[in-house]
Amino acid sequence: MNSQKPLRTVIAHIFEGAQPYSKIGKALDIFLICLILLNVVAIVLESVATLHQQYSTWFLTIELVSVAIFTLEYLLRLWCCVDKTEYLNDDSSAKKRLKYFFTPLALIDLLAILPTWLMMFFSLDLRFLRVIRLLRIFKLTRYSRAMQLLLESFKEERSSLLAAFFIMSVVMILAACGIYLLEHDVQPDKFGSIPQAMWWALVTLTTVGYGDVVPITAGGKLFGGLVTVLSMGMVAIPTGLLASSFADQMRKRREAFQEAVLHSLIDGELTLDEREHLEHLRVELGLSHMEANKAIKFITSQRVHDVYCRHCGQRL
Amino acid sequence: MNSQKPLRTVIAHIFEGAQPYSKIGKALDIFLICLILLNVVAIVLESVATLHQQYSTWFLTIELVSVAIFTLEYLLRLWCCVDKTEYLNDDSSAKKRLKYFFTPLALIDLLAILPTWLMMFFSLDLRFLRVIRLLRIFKLTRYSRAMQLLLESFKEERSSLLAAFFIMSVVMILAACGIYLLEHDVQPDKFGSIPQAMWWALVTLTTVGYGDVVPITAGGKLFGGLVTVLSMGMVAIPTGLLASSFADQMRKRREAFQEAVLHSLIDGELTLDEREHLEHLRVELGLSHMEANKAIKFITSQRVHDVYCRHCGQRL
Amino acid sequence: MNSQKPLRTVIAHIFEGAQPYSKIGKALDIFLICLILLNVVAIVLESVATLHQQYSTWFLTIELVSVAIFTLEYLLRLWCCVDKTEYLNDDSSAKKRLKYFFTPLALIDLLAILPTWLMMFFSLDLRFLRVIRLLRIFKLTRYSRAMQLLLESFKEERSSLLAAFFIMSVVMILAACGIYLLEHDVQPDKFGSIPQAMWWALVTLTTVGYGDVVPITAGGKLFGGLVTVLSMGMVAIPTGLLASSFADQMRKRREAFQEAVLHSLIDGELTLDEREHLEHLRVELGLSHMEANKAIKFITSQRVHDVYCRHCGQRL
Amino acid sequence: MNSQKPLRTVIAHIFEGAQPYSKIGKALDIFLICLILLNVVAIVLESVATLHQQYSTWFLTIELVSVAIFTLEYLLRLWCCVDKTEYLNDDSSAKKRLKYFFTPLALIDLLAILPTWLMMFFSLDLRFLRVIRLLRIFKLTRYSRAMQLLLESFKEERSSLLAAFFIMSVVMILAACGIYLLEHDVQPDKFGSIPQAMWWALVTLTTVGYGDVVPITAGGKLFGGLVTVLSMGMVAIPTGLLASSFADQMRKRREAFQEAVLHSLIDGELTLDEREHLEHLRVELGLSHMEANKAIKFITSQRVHDVYCRHCGQRL
Repeated sequence: MNSQKPLRTVIAHIFEGAQPYSKIGKALDIFLICLILLNVVAIVLESVATLHQQYSTWFLTIELVSVAIFTLEYLLRLWCCVDKTEYLNDDSSAKKRLKYFFTPLALIDLLAILPTWLMMFFSLDLRFLRVIRLLRIFKLTRYSRAMQLLLESFKEERSSLLAAFFIMSVVMILAACGIYLLEHDVQPDKFGSIPQAMWWALVTLTTVGYGDVVPITAGGKLFGGLVTVLSMGMVAIPTGLLASSFADQMRKRREAFQEAVLHSLIDGELTLDEREHLEHLRVELGLSHMEANKAIKFITSQRVHDVYCRHCGQRL
Repeated sequence: MNSQKPLRTVIAHIFEGAQPYSKIGKALDIFLICLILLNVVAIVLESVATLHQQYSTWFLTIELVSVAIFTLEYLLRLWCCVDKTEYLNDDSSAKKRLKYFFTPLALIDLLAILPTWLMMFFSLDLRFLRVIRLLRIFKLTRYSRAMQLLLESFKEERSSLLAAFFIMSVVMILAACGIYLLEHDVQPDKFGSIPQAMWWALVTLTTVGYGDVVPITAGGKLFGGLVTVLSMGMVAIPTGLLASSFADQMRKRREAFQEAVLHSLIDGELTLDEREHLEHLRVELGLSHMEANKAIKFITSQRVHDVYCRHCGQRL
Repeated sequence: MNSQKPLRTVIAHIFEGAQPYSKIGKALDIFLICLILLNVVAIVLESVATLHQQYSTWFLTIELVSVAIFTLEYLLRLWCCVDKTEYLNDDSSAKKRLKYFFTPLALIDLLAILPTWLMMFFSLDLRFLRVIRLLRIFKLTRYSRAMQLLLESFKEERSSLLAAFFIMSVVMILAACGIYLLEHDVQPDKFGSIPQAMWWALVTLTTVGYGDVVPITAGGKLFGGLVTVLSMGMVAIPTGLLASSFADQMRKRREAFQEAVLHSLIDGELTLDEREHLEHLRVELGLSHMEANKAIKFITSQRVHDVYCRHCGQRL
Repeated sequence: MNSQKPLRTVIAHIFEGAQPYSKIGKALDIFLICLILLNVVAIVLESVATLHQQYSTWFLTIELVSVAIFTLEYLLRLWCCVDKTEYLNDDSSAKKRLKYFFTPLALIDLLAILPTWLMMFFSLDLRFLRVIRLLRIFKLTRYSRAMQLLLESFKEERSSLLAAFFIMSVVMILAACGIYLLEHDVQPDKFGSIPQAMWWALVTLTTVGYGDVVPITAGGKLFGGLVTVLSMGMVAIPTGLLASSFADQMRKRREAFQEAVLHSLIDGELTLDEREHLEHLRVELGLSHMEANKAIKFITSQRVHDVYCRHCGQRL
């Protein structure tokens, strides 16, 4: 086991992009991203009948090579997870691996290879399994920082968005029930039941408006017109929530940067190290150069404008 | 009456979720929410003809049991309302009950059971009454805090939203009248009158766009194109109003929390009681832990900065 | 002329809602608003053929009485405008009347009565003139404060909205030209020329999407898909502009109120007169009680926290 | 070469709108803008078959004259670019011209004349080249300041918008793959492959909703309803991002103006020169008069508050 440990650590460091291997790690990341995108394109094109027949060997080759690489990646990640920095405190290797096994990212990795392995050993419904391989696209989550930031915004507005969703459900059910009452007798094939009427209600409230199901009676059109007006409110709620949430996030990042500047300036000067750290933070928070400079200048100028003591009159 | 009073108070406390019975009150709430949701699902499914025939006894059972429980709930609430904390100042019990009878929540509760009782005693239009039972969904308002917050935002922007609605009405009438003039002769069945043309105007201005009624003359398409461009403005107004209102609410909550922190810090320290109270407030205002901590830290640091002179040591 | 002047002044004051006649002025306003709305409803319903035949005498009566009243109102306003407070500086009455004649509100008033007078004396196209009477709805502008505020927001964002409109025009022309190239040969009846293709481009870019004209070739669908994605941006620009503008207006009103409070507090106290004036301002700016109180409290507290001189140590 | 230099400098100054020739420069700009717009209208109308036949000589004349003028403009710009203020540091004229040749604006200018020159000398596909001349519309970019500001906002939100685009792509692919599985067997002509299903997914997720392709099975409608709900989120993300970005830009411009005012006031007074410069800045930043005055007043009042002690009269 002693001779193996260094190799395992090296691989773990490559996967984590840790210092001595950060370049190899980056190259590996780019290779895997390209492979995932190639897979998505291949699966999408494979569903076209003519392409499927003509290039079936190509598709099969891509699939087999990809699954081989993804399986290798999965097994290596499972093997190396013991050396991950965040897992250092745990006790036995088996426990750590079990813990890693159930993380979302590991489950996604498993999901990406499972359908093909199942297809090889069992005779299951091919088309469904073939298409489910598309979930491989979620493997990209590991690499997209901006997406994680966006998802965070969603998470923060979770309760408000849920409330919006609840209101929309109530409005949708009432709209479906109203149109069902008004149009049921005239168009029994389209508004035959409330669940059927819900299709119209959803398509209208989200302003998609296919037009495959449309009220035709005067009462139905009057009620439908009311629902179209409500649809604007339905669309406005999530948009308004996200707009206000995005603006809030931007403000928070700016404040976080200002606080870091304030902290660096406690001794009155910005050392080179501190400047580097602030630059690092600026990139991470996605602030522009101009904004960062303004924050630094603003806080520096504030320090000069300090207050004086009313008892001894000295500068504080 | 003496022996009865304690029971009435106990039930009132359970309904209100007051201290000694808060757990029973919560369990009762969850039970009632589930019952309401079960009812909504049952009424929606009942409208499907095949399910209605196959499971009619099930639907009837659910309906009768639900109405029995809702009636009991309604009567108990009416009986106990005398002991509600907010009603303590009023005089006679009859007056209190009459007052409670006309509150929105009590009227919703009544509306939830009335259709079934009417159906039992009179031979009315069955389908309409059956569907109107769906209004039971409004009983959920009592339990959804987030929804109440959203509705508050709507209420605050009431006058602006009304103005937006008024502008939209004017634009809608003018759009309907324009398209009526341009398309009336070519499509007399679809644009035969201004009220008929209003259907097109509404569907277009809300960007739903079913496509069941569409201008076909060159002039009609030119005018229609202009209306589609206006539709973007129509959608933008309520969205913009809500977005700015949501952002404003968020700011207000943050300020309310900061004020509470400032108040707690008047004596210079945060006692355990005050911390608990702030935590309570934080949850109520929907602020994140990070944000609350920052507010506390910010205000604490401000006080420390201002309080003592570093030269003479006196308090400023 | 001397005996006539008081009457003219009285009528001018009634129209303006000036002090001694403010109640009569308000009643007159409400009467005129109801009359305008009645007219709009009547004109809309008159366009329905069956109603037109059945109630033609009613419609005629409403029309004649309304035009008589509107004409009287118009002539009185024209006669009295000489006494309007804002016109006090001008010289001759004829000049003042000419000046008033060309104000937007006076032109709207004229436009509201002209079609009917023309119809009475000339044999013009009846339907067009009948519908153009709907422009009477603009007479409501005089009475809607909230609408004026919304229009102001539009005016402030004028240049940005124009730029958005310009961008949309460019995108629209390019989309039309692209789809024309791709679909012209397959659907010559629908994409026969760029102006025809513009109908599709507009309907798509505003996300209305009627579906009466849809690309059917693979290339057309690919390009169409790109245009649908661009449509989200097209919708987002005006919405974002208005959202940010509304938020800005809200901030400005709050600041205007704070400034007024600051001004009232220069002498250190809020007199009863000042309180009344602030309450007046609060209503006008559409701020809530809570917000106004907070502004007053905030500014009062700030005064107490003043700075001390570093030379003599006295409070400034 | 000596006698030629002044002329070249004069032309360069006219193109740049530099001081002694700013009026001629403005007139030239307006002339070129009108010519570009005339070209766009002509190309659009030329695509209408009847107009093309009837006025072919007119269209040809407009085209030839325009291309002659645009070619002259292009060559002059290329010739004069040597004297542009921003190019003063470079060495040889050829190098400067090569550098200018590859700027976006120069490439657009070239693109505007190239199709016609190609058509004259080679027998290429006429319709495609005729339509591609529409790219001439991009020549307007040079003249639209507001558009440049809007594009800047897009650029600043680049990474967030890209993340939103990435999320939308993932959702779109999964939606297409889901509907393909559910509707493939029932509507093989419309959902025959995933690329075909993508058309439905895009049209739905952008809330365009043509209705030419619609799910008809119960499962497909259930899944489709879910996708319509997701579409609201898809529309909300870019709108929210732009709304928050626009609000941020507005704030930045206000702060930039305040900083300029602060800088002008360092000596305690606003000279006439400084006032002019601030007015210039105000127009450039698109701030209203009221807002600018408030900023000046606010900063002036702050300075006065801080400067002198009212007890000892000394400067603080």
